[in-house]
Amino acid sequence: MIRVNGLAIDSIHARDRGLAYGDGVFRTLRTEAGQPVWWADHYARLEADCSVLMLDCPDQNTLRDEVCRAAEAGQGVVKIILTRGVGMRGYAVPEASANTCVVLASAMPQHAKSLGDIRARWCELKLARQPRLAGVKHLNRLENVLARAEWDEPDIFEGLLCDDQGAIVSGVMSNVFWAKQGELFTPDLSQCGVAGVARMRLLRAAARRGIRVHIDRFTPADLLAADEVMICNSLIGVRRVARLDDTTWLPAGWTLLLNDALYDNLD
Amino acid sequence: MIRVNGLAIDSIHARDRGLAYGDGVFRTLRTEAGQPVWWADHYARLEADCSVLMLDCPDQNTLRDEVCRAAEAGQGVVKIILTRGVGMRGYAVPEASANTCVVLASAMPQHAKSLGDIRARWCELKLARQPRLAGVKHLNRLENVLARAEWDEPDIFEGLLCDDQGAIVSGVMSNVFWAKQGELFTPDLSQCGVAGVARMRLLRAAARRGIRVHIDRFTPADLLAADEVMICNSLIGVRRVARLDDTTWLPAGWTLLLNDALYDNLD
Repeated sequence: MIRVNGLAIDSIHARDRGLAYGDGVFRTLRTEAGQPVWWADHYARLEADCSVLMLDCPDQNTLRDEVCRAAEAGQGVVKIILTRGVGMRGYAVPEASANTCVVLASAMPQHAKSLGDIRARWCELKLARQPRLAGVKHLNRLENVLARAEWDEPDIFEGLLCDDQGAIVSGVMSNVFWAKQGELFTPDLSQCGVAGVARMRLLRAAARRGIRVHIDRFTPADLLAADEVMICNSLIGVRRVARLDDTTWLPAGWTLLLNDALYDNLD
Repeated sequence: MIRVNGLAIDSIHARDRGLAYGDGVFRTLRTEAGQPVWWADHYARLEADCSVLMLDCPDQNTLRDEVCRAAEAGQGVVKIILTRGVGMRGYAVPEASANTCVVLASAMPQHAKSLGDIRARWCELKLARQPRLAGVKHLNRLENVLARAEWDEPDIFEGLLCDDQGAIVSGVMSNVFWAKQGELFTPDLSQCGVAGVARMRLLRAAARRGIRVHIDRFTPADLLAADEVMICNSLIGVRRVARLDDTTWLPAGWTLLLNDALYDNLD
């Protein structure tokens, strides 16, 4: 089901700034029995991302109601797209613009239901560094599209991305963690990348359990030296990278541990 | 008037990848008496940009007919938006996707009818360098939106942008040229920026007239030392920058000369 600005319609105006400029943000979240999972975290990120783009964020309860109205009955996925609304010509932000709020619901994709290990590759594309937009889940995602177009082998689940200085940033659709000698590592996202809700929850869960997490700029060599490598996002949870190009790892127990931690509570 | 995929409708599907990811390209062009101006050049750029994104470009005559059907009777502006069409979830390019072609026509804005000198400012925002997308007029334009939001003084017409290494790139909605000691200078766009049709026509016109043009990485200091600074795009033609923050210039004759050159022919 699709809802736009509170109505059961499936189209947006052709002059929407979301289309013209990617002038907006989005979230992708799980729904269980028609209710959003990790809602408080998703709303907090949406609010933070809106603030970076100087967008008004819809009221939390109103938006939650919209998500529930759109959501599938069983397990589902909801994508919320929030744009600066319809504009006339030019980049200048209209003085009186009403945001566009799109809620797209679908059934949970098969790949997101699995807990199995995954295979990944390094992408050729290097992410540009734009600190003003780093961390934000905005609608300018051509880098992800180009990176995802680098492979079509169905057994490769994810591609890992570095920035133009060689620092590892994330997966195309996920954040990356790895464990070594009892500690966790994940890339700093102050230059580029998306700070996902699953990543935030893992950081919180690690703190709660007294696991030290290093958030810094790392090279692919740092990751390759790990005991266990994982990707995460709100749909797939935590998945172990069993193979990355020609490097393979055996399970070291971290993926199970962190998946449990991720689901400490569902609010 | 708005046309979408050959029909007189004003909306696109909410699952369009142009909205979801900015997965598409666009052109903005003048129309005169319902006919596109500089059509061959615009189509050539559209085709080149499509090829970078692995998008199918519509047939030239079909697209031109669409532009003519949408265009205003007198002087007008037409924006063509071409996206990878409707997709389901995920960044992967759908195997069988039909592009979305949006043609948006409006009257020529007042500011584009003037030939007067303009005032500009330096923007704080630094453009990220992404060689894979540099030069392409794609739909990921949040940097332009953020840069344009830096000022609201109505007498400031344009903001000039540098990249994160301090090289000058372009205006928010224009390309930049300057003249010094009988030669022309314009930034290299291999790292970021949009290679506009007006810029391309100026380069061609300069070559035809035996004017040497330096295309390179330049600093703001290089520009400030110019005899005359100009911005250009397909709507405004060439406009002289009379003032840039606190720096002012007197006319040195280049803007008139280049504006003539730009309109050598209208095809």
